Amino acid sequence: MAVYTEVSDDDLKIFLQQYDIGAPLSFKGIAEGVENSNYLLQTERGTFILTLYEKRVRSADLPFFLGLMDHLAARGIACPTPIHGRDGRALRELCGRPAAIIGFLVGMCARRPAVEHCAALGTALAAMHRAGADYALRRANDLSLAGWQTLFAATAARADEVFPGLAKIIEAELRFLSGAWPQGLREGVIHADLFPDNVFFRGNSLSGTIDYYFACNDALAYDLAICLNAWCFEPDNSFNATKARALLRRYQADAALPASDIATLPILARGAAIRFLLTRLYDLLNHREGALVRPKDPAEYLRKLQFHQSVRGTGDYGLP
Amino acid sequence: MAVYTEVSDDDLKIFLQQYDIGAPLSFKGIAEGVENSNYLLQTERGTFILTLYEKRVRSADLPFFLGLMDHLAARGIACPTPIHGRDGRALRELCGRPAAIIGFLVGMCARRPAVEHCAALGTALAAMHRAGADYALRRANDLSLAGWQTLFAATAARADEVFPGLAKIIEAELRFLSGAWPQGLREGVIHADLFPDNVFFRGNSLSGTIDYYFACNDALAYDLAICLNAWCFEPDNSFNATKARALLRRYQADAALPASDIATLPILARGAAIRFLLTRLYDLLNHREGALVRPKDPAEYLRKLQFHQSVRGTGDYGLP
Repeated sequence: MAVYTEVSDDDLKIFLQQYDIGAPLSFKGIAEGVENSNYLLQTERGTFILTLYEKRVRSADLPFFLGLMDHLAARGIACPTPIHGRDGRALRELCGRPAAIIGFLVGMCARRPAVEHCAALGTALAAMHRAGADYALRRANDLSLAGWQTLFAATAARADEVFPGLAKIIEAELRFLSGAWPQGLREGVIHADLFPDNVFFRGNSLSGTIDYYFACNDALAYDLAICLNAWCFEPDNSFNATKARALLRRYQADAALPASDIATLPILARGAAIRFLLTRLYDLLNHREGALVRPKDPAEYLRKLQFHQSVRGTGDYGLP
Repeated sequence: MAVYTEVSDDDLKIFLQQYDIGAPLSFKGIAEGVENSNYLLQTERGTFILTLYEKRVRSADLPFFLGLMDHLAARGIACPTPIHGRDGRALRELCGRPAAIIGFLVGMCARRPAVEHCAALGTALAAMHRAGADYALRRANDLSLAGWQTLFAATAARADEVFPGLAKIIEAELRFLSGAWPQGLREGVIHADLFPDNVFFRGNSLSGTIDYYFACNDALAYDLAICLNAWCFEPDNSFNATKARALLRRYQADAALPASDIATLPILARGAAIRFLLTRLYDLLNHREGALVRPKDPAEYLRKLQFHQSVRGTGDYGLP
């Protein structure tokens, strides 16, 4: 939930003069996205999202994110489309913050994804990876091995407040991952945050994917590993191999990553688990009283990490 | 800003089966209303607000509020219209809370109302009062003299933490008001919370009024007194008599309250100021760290109270 920056009706009217989308009819702050201020904007020409980028998103990265949405949308991927102003620009400033108007995407999140949702996700992820292949801009993944070390350095001293022994567990895992992290995997643009909150459905049909603000260049299989963590565990943290199989098979049917890439999934999934464990731990330890966002539980990702540590091979993810 | 109760896609789908508004296409928590959880809901048939009533709204009052919206809408007042289910009911339960689906009203709030907005408000308020005249249900105003005493009892001990000397100021004012509060004014259904946040415009045309959850039976002129406080002060707390004149004249052109009612506005406006001073004071003193709503500043209403205390007559509100 998040509206950090209040936009007045006068500010909005002046801002909209730079676009060709008609006069505003309705404007409501929405509780979506923990990183930015988001408004649902209805104008004479349609429905849009107005996003003001708050400090956690680096301004220098915004051309990469907005350009990627343009690029994907032009290739038929159902993702939010940045609206360009009369001057051709999609990114400008509002209330002292970088801001953009983005097309509105219809659909509902699946809070408890079923097997069919995971299958549809596999197809959509493969299409996104294919469409991103010729995207010209590049952005390194700042939440990979080096970023995890930085986050651990910032949380190690207080990690055991959250879960006794957590600092040692993370330290050992990071040591393992820095030695075992696979190299030479097929790379491309990955979404890197494709949680159920960021995927819309109409019925069981996937209608679009949103929130490209962690997208970056990295191993394509790592995106799959993030999805295994975010989509294939039940509320009691047990792993559902049927969902994983549906996701992986449908992805592979269209993306066809080399078998050697798929074989690294157990390690990539440990990395994905430690990435969300660390950011949740950091957010919890740095949560200000009175902040508008409730921190998420890091322990969920500790249990997911422990599952992947116990995995013997991709057979445990439902593959033959 | 407020989404206190999370509604899952599954809960929503089951809930919507009781209505004839089609399947959901989009569902977003919105930052509107500090008392309830509000979602913007798009279905195959249109756009709606789904409201879950949180504990500050008494369930027993909901039939009054929803029935009033039905009543006013049927008489052409642009207000949200409760959607009735297949069983004819507008009020039911969702996620353990009373809940209703309400029609969506197009329009933008005027954060800094101009004279034209105040004039349009006067016309709309008169129309609302006329349309409410034959509403059958009744609800006492629990935030009038007796309610203010209750709020003062709950805040007196700590009032001076907010502003030195505040407890004595409120005590003296309540003593004055309990003696001077006018009797025998023309009564009817009042909105009782008609702040700029609750009034929508398209351009300078008023397109609707929302948030009827403080509506009650009381003196009609008291609703005007609330609007004088909420609409006719500048950001520096100076009173704008041009705005007040526009509001009062346009209201009187259609409502024609007796001159003796209008003559009591200086006292009613003091009462309205103390009402919002007290609820803001209570909310500030009882604000939980980590709560999702930022408390509003009571001092704003202390300054408004002091203005009305200095008024010599309705001439200071721009009337002849």
